[in-house]
Amino acid sequence: MSDRPRLTPAVADLRRAVRGSLLGRVQKGDRVLVALSGGPDSLALAAATVFEAKRLEVEAGAIIIDHDLQEGSAKIAEHAAEQAAELGLAPVSVVRVSVEDLGAGPEASARVARYEAIEAVRVETGASWVLLGHTLDDQAETVLLGLARGSGAKSLHGMAPVTGTLLRPLLGLHRQVTVQACEDQGITPWIDPHNSDPAYTRVRVRDTVLPLLEKELGPGISEALARTATTLREDSETLDALALEWAHEIVNTDDDGRISLDVGGIVAQPPALRQRICRIVAEQGFGVSLTRRHTMAVTALATEWRGQGPVDLPGIRVEREKGRILFGATASAHDDHLDETA
Amino acid sequence: MSDRPRLTPAVADLRRAVRGSLLGRVQKGDRVLVALSGGPDSLALAAATVFEAKRLEVEAGAIIIDHDLQEGSAKIAEHAAEQAAELGLAPVSVVRVSVEDLGAGPEASARVARYEAIEAVRVETGASWVLLGHTLDDQAETVLLGLARGSGAKSLHGMAPVTGTLLRPLLGLHRQVTVQACEDQGITPWIDPHNSDPAYTRVRVRDTVLPLLEKELGPGISEALARTATTLREDSETLDALALEWAHEIVNTDDDGRISLDVGGIVAQPPALRQRICRIVAEQGFGVSLTRRHTMAVTALATEWRGQGPVDLPGIRVEREKGRILFGATASAHDDHLDETA
Repeated sequence: MSDRPRLTPAVADLRRAVRGSLLGRVQKGDRVLVALSGGPDSLALAAATVFEAKRLEVEAGAIIIDHDLQEGSAKIAEHAAEQAAELGLAPVSVVRVSVEDLGAGPEASARVARYEAIEAVRVETGASWVLLGHTLDDQAETVLLGLARGSGAKSLHGMAPVTGTLLRPLLGLHRQVTVQACEDQGITPWIDPHNSDPAYTRVRVRDTVLPLLEKELGPGISEALARTATTLREDSETLDALALEWAHEIVNTDDDGRISLDVGGIVAQPPALRQRICRIVAEQGFGVSLTRRHTMAVTALATEWRGQGPVDLPGIRVEREKGRILFGATASAHDDHLDETA
Repeated sequence: MSDRPRLTPAVADLRRAVRGSLLGRVQKGDRVLVALSGGPDSLALAAATVFEAKRLEVEAGAIIIDHDLQEGSAKIAEHAAEQAAELGLAPVSVVRVSVEDLGAGPEASARVARYEAIEAVRVETGASWVLLGHTLDDQAETVLLGLARGSGAKSLHGMAPVTGTLLRPLLGLHRQVTVQACEDQGITPWIDPHNSDPAYTRVRVRDTVLPLLEKELGPGISEALARTATTLREDSETLDALALEWAHEIVNTDDDGRISLDVGGIVAQPPALRQRICRIVAEQGFGVSLTRRHTMAVTALATEWRGQGPVDLPGIRVEREKGRILFGATASAHDDHLDETA
């Protein structure tokens, strides 16, 4: 590792991105952490963070998660920790997490375990922010994966530049820029063999789907996907906020714990808000997440009333009574009647 | 063509879709038209429309557009007209349109010419609605094409089930169902060779991109794309309506024709509405469509004010003055300064 990194375009891009992300969010004396995998994205992020933290008089540490999922993972984590220390990051925490399969596949389970460990170290070290190395290419892959699920706008959001205490400064930069920045600064990243294992959907998206889309639909598809994620996130956050505001205005809670909405108040809303308001009531009132299909059945009690009976969903029953839509908890989680009759 | 079409599942699906689309929109004695290409989608639609129109006591005619773009197109149109008459559609209009290249490619130009001709015949024949044969697969292709453009939510909407006087009853059905319905009823559709010409982006999306996405991301991708289109359309229509409402509240028109917005009123809006309000002012006030980049530069005059100068866009100049954002027409269409400095 060179002592005097050259200020190449790639290094400048990385530093500008980190500066933009930290400015206005940190104060002199604060601490931030870089989540480090040892790959090019996070190492380039680490080097840029060390530089910018010095300028902002902020302390920069690192956290390395050892998922213990592949052979030699402890050694890889150890090596990343050494690189972090050499770059000037302190303190450097290495945390070994055990990944329980939560039923949504190994990738999802590893992600949950990783974020829990990151948050624990952040609190422990008194850091205000944790910087993550996700790039524009990661974002494009996330959008395509969401698209395949088809669960609506939410699945197309991709990752936010700020989520709670997590920052993603590199969402506007291509992965290749981080590889170049490492090379320019004499940093040798670790190449995760999982990143080329086609058993992972994300790897197939990266290596097969995106290149084909570029070829058939024209270049710039990753940028297009990332742009789409940004505007859809703004749209959806706005609608969520409006729905929450209006939900509080038109919701009543009965003495028996049932929550009710005035049919007139629901019908007057445009569909996107009507559906969100019903989802908010189910979620905040009963901890139940409604699918689009469930939501449509509930809103139909207001908008397509023809005397239909109660809608039984897992954990709640929704019915219409005297011009109101009533949400009530059911004793136990029901089978999903709607799915049965599909 | 058989005189007594068998009521197969495919035929029933088609009829149910057409009935759902017409119910509540037509009255006894009304006239509707089917836009007929002679392909399986529109022929299956035509057969179902004849059946449902009879039940609803509505007249059903047909319009066939001859784009005159390929050899023998007149003959193909003539054959489709014969099939329409045999199915019982009347009146049957064949219109030859000349396609001028409007600069957006032959597909876009043909589309504009087609919709203009359809509207002319609709008015001429006193029809209240025109039914189009777009299927779920067409919708999925449209969403993917929009995604590649990356122009945000708008490009992901796909086609609406109702646009003005156009109805698209088949957006929930796969193309294969229309092929089957034709076969079940002894109808022989014309197969457009353009539909397998890989020179067209849409053909590549259909024949190469979607099958690869199915293979790599799992089955059901077309349904997922169509579902996404529906929820995004609802979200965006809701935001458009709210933005329009609020734009009228916070907009002032000066004596000199300049339109102004109060900075406080703009800043108080969430980003998705703020941006839409600025686009509405440019569009409705000056007939100028703002790109996302332009919009961001305009809103930055309110939200990221650091004394920056006027924003010169093609046809308008936007500047900040005494706590207001002022939009004014410029003498001629300017060069796009923002693009020059990109």
